[in-house]
Amino acid sequence: MGFSLEAVREAHRLIQGLARTTPLVEALSFSDQAGQPILLKLETLQPIGAFKIRGAAHALLRLDEAARRRGVVCCSTGNHGKAVAYAARHLGIKATICLSNLVPEAKVQGIAAQGATIRRCGTSQDDAQREADRLVREKGYTDISPFDHRNVILGQATIALELLTECPDLTQIVVPLSGGGLLGGIAVAAKQIKPSIRVTGVSMAEGAAMHESLKAGHPIHVAEAPSLADTLGGGINLTNQWTFKLCCDFADETLLVSEEEIYRGMQALFRRERLIAEGGGAVGIAALLAGKLKLDGPTAMIISGQNADLDQIIAVAKGEPVRVGDRMVKG
Amino acid sequence: MGFSLEAVREAHRLIQGLARTTPLVEALSFSDQAGQPILLKLETLQPIGAFKIRGAAHALLRLDEAARRRGVVCCSTGNHGKAVAYAARHLGIKATICLSNLVPEAKVQGIAAQGATIRRCGTSQDDAQREADRLVREKGYTDISPFDHRNVILGQATIALELLTECPDLTQIVVPLSGGGLLGGIAVAAKQIKPSIRVTGVSMAEGAAMHESLKAGHPIHVAEAPSLADTLGGGINLTNQWTFKLCCDFADETLLVSEEEIYRGMQALFRRERLIAEGGGAVGIAALLAGKLKLDGPTAMIISGQNADLDQIIAVAKGEPVRVGDRMVKG
Repeated sequence: MGFSLEAVREAHRLIQGLARTTPLVEALSFSDQAGQPILLKLETLQPIGAFKIRGAAHALLRLDEAARRRGVVCCSTGNHGKAVAYAARHLGIKATICLSNLVPEAKVQGIAAQGATIRRCGTSQDDAQREADRLVREKGYTDISPFDHRNVILGQATIALELLTECPDLTQIVVPLSGGGLLGGIAVAAKQIKPSIRVTGVSMAEGAAMHESLKAGHPIHVAEAPSLADTLGGGINLTNQWTFKLCCDFADETLLVSEEEIYRGMQALFRRERLIAEGGGAVGIAALLAGKLKLDGPTAMIISGQNADLDQIIAVAKGEPVRVGDRMVKG
Repeated sequence: MGFSLEAVREAHRLIQGLARTTPLVEALSFSDQAGQPILLKLETLQPIGAFKIRGAAHALLRLDEAARRRGVVCCSTGNHGKAVAYAARHLGIKATICLSNLVPEAKVQGIAAQGATIRRCGTSQDDAQREADRLVREKGYTDISPFDHRNVILGQATIALELLTECPDLTQIVVPLSGGGLLGGIAVAAKQIKPSIRVTGVSMAEGAAMHESLKAGHPIHVAEAPSLADTLGGGINLTNQWTFKLCCDFADETLLVSEEEIYRGMQALFRRERLIAEGGGAVGIAALLAGKLKLDGPTAMIISGQNADLDQIIAVAKGEPVRVGDRMVKG
């Protein structure tokens, strides 16, 4: 399928300078509670505050000169757009980012600060994708899909290399699951290095497009819903080319966490470890605290990003209710 | 003086497993503002949430078998005590930590969680030190000074090795300054690697014992004062053996920041970089934002610890006033 370890290693070499090798730190309070080492992979420390820079940088670096001159476009729930904008700026490529109106303001500002052109359109990732498709047709831009793109997946897969190089005795990797670029990439790479490793995807209970598609046996449409893990929103595309098959073939399980569980995951990271994570980055800890993980050895959690709104972070840290769509959530 | 690079390298080898090589991450928002790369050395990610584990681990590892069996004692403003307790637990050594009543409750709990015996006494580091001295006389414990101890200094000095290995083109290192173990250790090591490097110490305006002593030309007594940077409190000891001379000989300058400036430093780290730092860990950023640093190239800031009280962190993040002694501070 084109996801050989050699391709992942080559991606890792290419993205140096744009993405960083992030630290893997043991979270002692969680280890004590779980009875197994719980190691946090801090993708929050990437230059854009999220893992997405790996895939975006790799995809842009692989473009030929003509495509670079024409420019790129993407749709995004926020972090991918920031990543494409950041990498594009560093490579001197013009970037346009299409965002639905569900994307939090803090992320829109973060993307604009990277000098990209912003297009806000509709209320779903699908709406944003349609605008991106139009720009591809009319302007000749290259679309950088946030997940269903071979070079993006290879970029995200570099996390598996770093994890198993630093900690070969890992028995499980717990991965936030949205479109499956991160889960599929990590799973296909990790299983080539260590076939026995367990790779678990975690999504929010409502709007978990990949989880529901895997259950159905094919990509299905799942309605988007407001969530603390807004970065995990969006469909997987009915004509999914790569990530559905990768998750099917290489992920061991996918599971769901409620908004209250995500809230508690974010809060525990803040209070116990003094770490700020967006909801989507805290779903692994949420699953751990909810007793939903089978642990049988050192377990790595991908803390995928930190770009939540400040007011939300502070409210969760304080233990105050936060608005999610039309209801209030508290841990 | 016994602070050769070889001794620092040996310390670095010894402490592996107890202390970690921490990441150095560029803080883009500060770089953009400063016009020079601003790199944060995240000692907040040490197992105890502060750099102190380096010196404490090294000092304990250097004890002979008989001393290990008798046990250790120390006084501390919090982080050193947690570090000694943590290292002692891992090495099977009994530890007693003497803390003044100025030490915040969050830190006392953090130390107790490491299984050490806690003694609370008086309202200053000097009071806590007297209790430690008594335990040395009566119980035969070995005192692990929080700063004026050769092996502690060598441990802290390992930060300079990591900084200049990862980023040889650094032109300046900005270091929180309390008793001078961190500043003295980093300065003496960094200057041996790169004589041109500028090493700057930063303290809170009131109770800056080393800064005032350097001005006076000899160790003097300075009254302790409540501060957001409570970890930087405490005297340098009138019979100072190591750190006064090291700071005198190897630090290029020391400067002071007000409580309001420290508040703004903590807040900027939280809001712009999503990083939680205690006041003492934010003094470098405080000095930067206050325009007090001369910058002439890539500058590393030691973000020395994260163990502030949660309520304080949250108040600063929100922009609310926080109590410091008998007054309220706001940025």
